[in-house]
Amino acid sequence: MDNERLTLLTDLVAKEIKKATAPLTLERARALSEEIRKEAARVGVKAVVAIADQAGHPILVECMDDAYIASYDVAVQKAFTVVALKMSTAALKPLAQPNQPLYGIQFTNQGKIVIFGGGEPLCDAFGNIIGGLGVSGGSEEQDTALAAFGKKVFEQ
Amino acid sequence: MDNERLTLLTDLVAKEIKKATAPLTLERARALSEEIRKEAARVGVKAVVAIADQAGHPILVECMDDAYIASYDVAVQKAFTVVALKMSTAALKPLAQPNQPLYGIQFTNQGKIVIFGGGEPLCDAFGNIIGGLGVSGGSEEQDTALAAFGKKVFEQ
Amino acid sequence: MDNERLTLLTDLVAKEIKKATAPLTLERARALSEEIRKEAARVGVKAVVAIADQAGHPILVECMDDAYIASYDVAVQKAFTVVALKMSTAALKPLAQPNQPLYGIQFTNQGKIVIFGGGEPLCDAFGNIIGGLGVSGGSEEQDTALAAFGKKVFEQ
Amino acid sequence: MDNERLTLLTDLVAKEIKKATAPLTLERARALSEEIRKEAARVGVKAVVAIADQAGHPILVECMDDAYIASYDVAVQKAFTVVALKMSTAALKPLAQPNQPLYGIQFTNQGKIVIFGGGEPLCDAFGNIIGGLGVSGGSEEQDTALAAFGKKVFEQ
Repeated sequence: MDNERLTLLTDLVAKEIKKATAPLTLERARALSEEIRKEAARVGVKAVVAIADQAGHPILVECMDDAYIASYDVAVQKAFTVVALKMSTAALKPLAQPNQPLYGIQFTNQGKIVIFGGGEPLCDAFGNIIGGLGVSGGSEEQDTALAAFGKKVFEQ
Repeated sequence: MDNERLTLLTDLVAKEIKKATAPLTLERARALSEEIRKEAARVGVKAVVAIADQAGHPILVECMDDAYIASYDVAVQKAFTVVALKMSTAALKPLAQPNQPLYGIQFTNQGKIVIFGGGEPLCDAFGNIIGGLGVSGGSEEQDTALAAFGKKVFEQ
Repeated sequence: MDNERLTLLTDLVAKEIKKATAPLTLERARALSEEIRKEAARVGVKAVVAIADQAGHPILVECMDDAYIASYDVAVQKAFTVVALKMSTAALKPLAQPNQPLYGIQFTNQGKIVIFGGGEPLCDAFGNIIGGLGVSGGSEEQDTALAAFGKKVFEQ
Repeated sequence: MDNERLTLLTDLVAKEIKKATAPLTLERARALSEEIRKEAARVGVKAVVAIADQAGHPILVECMDDAYIASYDVAVQKAFTVVALKMSTAALKPLAQPNQPLYGIQFTNQGKIVIFGGGEPLCDAFGNIIGGLGVSGGSEEQDTALAAFGKKVFEQ
């Protein structure tokens, strides 16, 4: 391979890696939240959308008009939970029931662990968790679907 | 319709709307709490009655003599819960049981969500939630009945 | 002294003692709060009035319409502080300044200690503290005056 | 005045009142935050912007990339403080200094009261507070200026 082609190839690979590992900026979070809010409006849910960084700290929270007051904390804590435990809150749910392995996890971490659907980890193209998504405001089924929708949109 | 009749009609409608959308003042809260305390005394319950505004902030808390110390927080938090989640705590209860959609909701919002009976949203004549009522001190059955009683008295 | 006179005297003394040591009931708390609210309205303050029992637990909280949201906690915590430390919050204030004996007290007790005016202990006729009064909503001067007014009304 | 002109006038007045009392929606909050972030970027501050409703509940929080982790809580709490106490945090600051009337207020309300610049109440055209703005991330001077900038943009 001649030098010119090597440079070209290196540039291409670098570009792909950069894209695949793009950090979770506020700009990306806002774009993601906008898609989720549109979908929520479509299915008739007044959602709170929270997006946390890979440390679990929220970087964006948006409350659709007339959302439940209680949904703010729930969404923020879902976004924390998925990063803190590296799984969706829907996956955590059965593990945290009475007599199950993680029963009681909800009382740890100053009560910031949410054990019902609506939270999804956000990953880069290599599968590394780079953030967390929490959606609250509809039924559990709706929140779970909206979070899964958001994860899919984000990871495309 | 002549002008005189129009004026008369307008005045009547304005008066009815004003009455139907009267805000939840301290005066109204005190009158409501008095009715609930009387009913509580009648059925032998030493109740704490808490009334919150539409944001969930308490505007009146009254502890009947010798009520449980623990009932203060429970009543205040019931009044918050019904506003924050837009449903009675009795309606929330089945949803928050193990393996049910909202199991774990009680650990969110800094533990301010109460998932047993005794809390009712207070609505204006158009069905808009303008406040929350929390009653604590008796059995769950008694608290639920007292809150329902209070909601009925308020919305008449 | 003949028996009849002795009985009469005993009855009188017992009655006075009973009156002097009347417990702090919700009824008394409501009457006291009403007086304070009237006085607050007279001087143009939208006050929150909190009255605690001798353990510092609130038994009555009333928020005048359009009072500060922040005043609820402040009033409740003033009522706790005066019982917990057996002095008015105005008396506590200089002791809790930097370089003074009790500096730092405000960080104890889960932050429930208030170190500015508006809280007064409520005493029976023997000077025993039987409750606490917290007023919040005006300037510190106004809150201090309203609490002192309330203490005077209560102890008459 | 003939009926046609009356109708025209009524429509105009209604339109102006509606505009002047437009509620603080998420859409307005997002537009406001965008302006503040642009200004923050211009002056070199990585800000967290929080906007609360008139009850002090946050409806939007945006963290500019690489903002301080600690700024999230500070911004949210500034937005709460200005609504809860009906003044800017810059105005609260001198009142909360040692030996001043409200020294210690910062320890009430579960520590949610912030006593340095960067928070401004948001008012409608009639001067009614309809929300709160909190900015954190720069020096106090910068946060204060950004919040004042935001208030001005919002109220135009």
